[in-house]
Amino acid sequence: MARCRALAAVSEERGRLTRRFATPAMTHANALVGGWMAEAGMIVRTDAAGNLIGRAAGASPEAGTLLLGSHLDTVRDAGAFDGPLGVLVAIACVARLRDAEVGLPFAIDVLGFSDEEGLRFGTAYLGSRAVAGTFDPALLELIDDDGITARDALAGFGGRPAAVAGASRRDERILGYVEVHMEQGPVLEERGVPVGVVSAIAGATRAEVRFAGRAGHAGTVPMESRRDAACAAAELVLAVESAGRRTAGLLATVGRLSALPGAPNVVPGAAIASLDVRHADDAVRAAAVAALRDAAVEIAMRRGVAVDWQPRLDNPAVAVDAGLTEALARAVRARGVPEVRLASGAGHDGVALSELCGIAMLFVRCADGLSHHPDEAVSADDAEVALDVLCSVVTGLGA
Amino acid sequence: MARCRALAAVSEERGRLTRRFATPAMTHANALVGGWMAEAGMIVRTDAAGNLIGRAAGASPEAGTLLLGSHLDTVRDAGAFDGPLGVLVAIACVARLRDAEVGLPFAIDVLGFSDEEGLRFGTAYLGSRAVAGTFDPALLELIDDDGITARDALAGFGGRPAAVAGASRRDERILGYVEVHMEQGPVLEERGVPVGVVSAIAGATRAEVRFAGRAGHAGTVPMESRRDAACAAAELVLAVESAGRRTAGLLATVGRLSALPGAPNVVPGAAIASLDVRHADDAVRAAAVAALRDAAVEIAMRRGVAVDWQPRLDNPAVAVDAGLTEALARAVRARGVPEVRLASGAGHDGVALSELCGIAMLFVRCADGLSHHPDEAVSADDAEVALDVLCSVVTGLGA
Repeated sequence: MARCRALAAVSEERGRLTRRFATPAMTHANALVGGWMAEAGMIVRTDAAGNLIGRAAGASPEAGTLLLGSHLDTVRDAGAFDGPLGVLVAIACVARLRDAEVGLPFAIDVLGFSDEEGLRFGTAYLGSRAVAGTFDPALLELIDDDGITARDALAGFGGRPAAVAGASRRDERILGYVEVHMEQGPVLEERGVPVGVVSAIAGATRAEVRFAGRAGHAGTVPMESRRDAACAAAELVLAVESAGRRTAGLLATVGRLSALPGAPNVVPGAAIASLDVRHADDAVRAAAVAALRDAAVEIAMRRGVAVDWQPRLDNPAVAVDAGLTEALARAVRARGVPEVRLASGAGHDGVALSELCGIAMLFVRCADGLSHHPDEAVSADDAEVALDVLCSVVTGLGA
Repeated sequence: MARCRALAAVSEERGRLTRRFATPAMTHANALVGGWMAEAGMIVRTDAAGNLIGRAAGASPEAGTLLLGSHLDTVRDAGAFDGPLGVLVAIACVARLRDAEVGLPFAIDVLGFSDEEGLRFGTAYLGSRAVAGTFDPALLELIDDDGITARDALAGFGGRPAAVAGASRRDERILGYVEVHMEQGPVLEERGVPVGVVSAIAGATRAEVRFAGRAGHAGTVPMESRRDAACAAAELVLAVESAGRRTAGLLATVGRLSALPGAPNVVPGAAIASLDVRHADDAVRAAAVAALRDAAVEIAMRRGVAVDWQPRLDNPAVAVDAGLTEALARAVRARGVPEVRLASGAGHDGVALSELCGIAMLFVRCADGLSHHPDEAVSADDAEVALDVLCSVVTGLGA
């Protein structure tokens, strides 16, 4: 926990925590975390994509490598735990196994991914895609807010843009990827358990829905003559909420909502609503999105306004590895913690790594479901439970 | 109509019509319109508040003065008719009565008010309040977007800020104020009549309603744990619309609507909705506002969010003068036009002048209910009807 707090002081900005991909703050973070990896007996390197990797060799070179870890980049004005917790728990796990002189046939690589949040270049998983061997070189041409390409940023950071393909672990024997991460939601807190086993990473659909009616003077256009786009959007907002409440496991959100032109004395001629729909089962998500699209059309037709539905994102759900996940669940039960399984609504490095190997995730309870916020918090006791569970799983895999 | 178009070319901005209070564009507009007044035989002056006044003397000095007119300032990117139409119809009326050698006992003052829209200083009726003797000198300290006070703007314009009180007509015998104005709504067009008689100027309440819930991750916070402020605002939007539809003559609008922080993947922690409620009967309006406030509180309590209701405006309805209005209605019928009476939902110079004298208004049909827009349009035939009606009323008052 002290290390999480120390790491949180490493920021691009004074007074708040922001660590974007391939910035000097990430250089400092990698140096700090790399030192802790070395203390735990690991051999430390940084790969071509800027990922920090600490390796604890196994007894048998043919036994392959188990990947642990999480990401070291953050969102803007972040908290101390989203990402770093998983890296530091993995390092603590390696240290504990070494101290206990637990011999493992396989190697362990603890990964500190260089980009999961995607804050700098507007795309996620730059680091974990490189490891998974799915990094599209075209991503190197992305440009940040200062006009710097990902290629130049990575080169300036000490990475090797031309050799990103070499960061791929495809040609090795990879046993799987196990990530500890704070939940970023309130479920474990509500259920009263310190950790939970991730059952799947939910798929997500995003769309932007625009209604176009007719603007008019709020004092002169009779109610029955109006084609108020904001009223149409309001109906959609409630339809979205209702869909989420009606369907188990479905999360449906309008996060962006605005009426145009947006003057108090003008009947809105246009309105924009964003849509975000997530579910662990792609078929359920697709059906919900289709129903909401029908609802938007029905609302628009009934009100005599036009509707434009712009798809923005369509990410399928990611399955977790049954064996690794069952091993996590067994370890949770063995630790005396009631087993709670829950889908991850947020994406994680595991989404990218699922293209390389089987993945499993352990969520750690956080305070008030808060994340991406300086007040995000994980208790030391809960982190200890996560560490116990991870050590138990790793030891079990080696048995 | 040609004069409306010529006047529309007098603007502060290239390519679109914007004439704010006490700007060089208003100097040019006053010069142009003042020329037309002089052509019609009037004595032209500009008062201390920048109002253009053309006077046609009456036969009997004790008979007092009838005020006609409207405003010469505009909104930003305005059309050609909102305001100028009423000034130019009044000038045409004076010209026609002179040509017809109609002798009147009273004088006619045609007023081109310097500020009705309030675009420059964020407050309406600077011109007409001066004439009504209700101009608060504190208004001179208002500051525009360029940091210029109303006092300095008026002085630079050739007005006399220190003598604004002298623009008051309180000490004279004023017979009333009759204004021709485009409707700015679709009612006359829907009823198929060129003009309509204003039955009252509706009162208006404005408020800003803020809901505060709890922001959260759209992918991790279960639906049943959410306190989504945008959903609360959406319910209010529909309650406002429903109130307007349920109550005859009530106009209820949410023109501004936004969710905060406004990211597609964040459950809105706050939402803001503006409220605009108008009715010709203050008691009906007050009851509707109270019911909507109760509805906002009920929505907020049921959803576990906070609500803050900030009053922004509370303008009582303005009654029209029964005698002048009946004279307008008679003249409309005599012109062979079906009599339509309608409340004005927008404010007009008559609101300010009602503190000085009886007022009456004649609305002229406009295309598609459009106003405050470069495409706003009034037909020449309809303007001719308005002119006939106005001439008939003025002549009748002199009989």
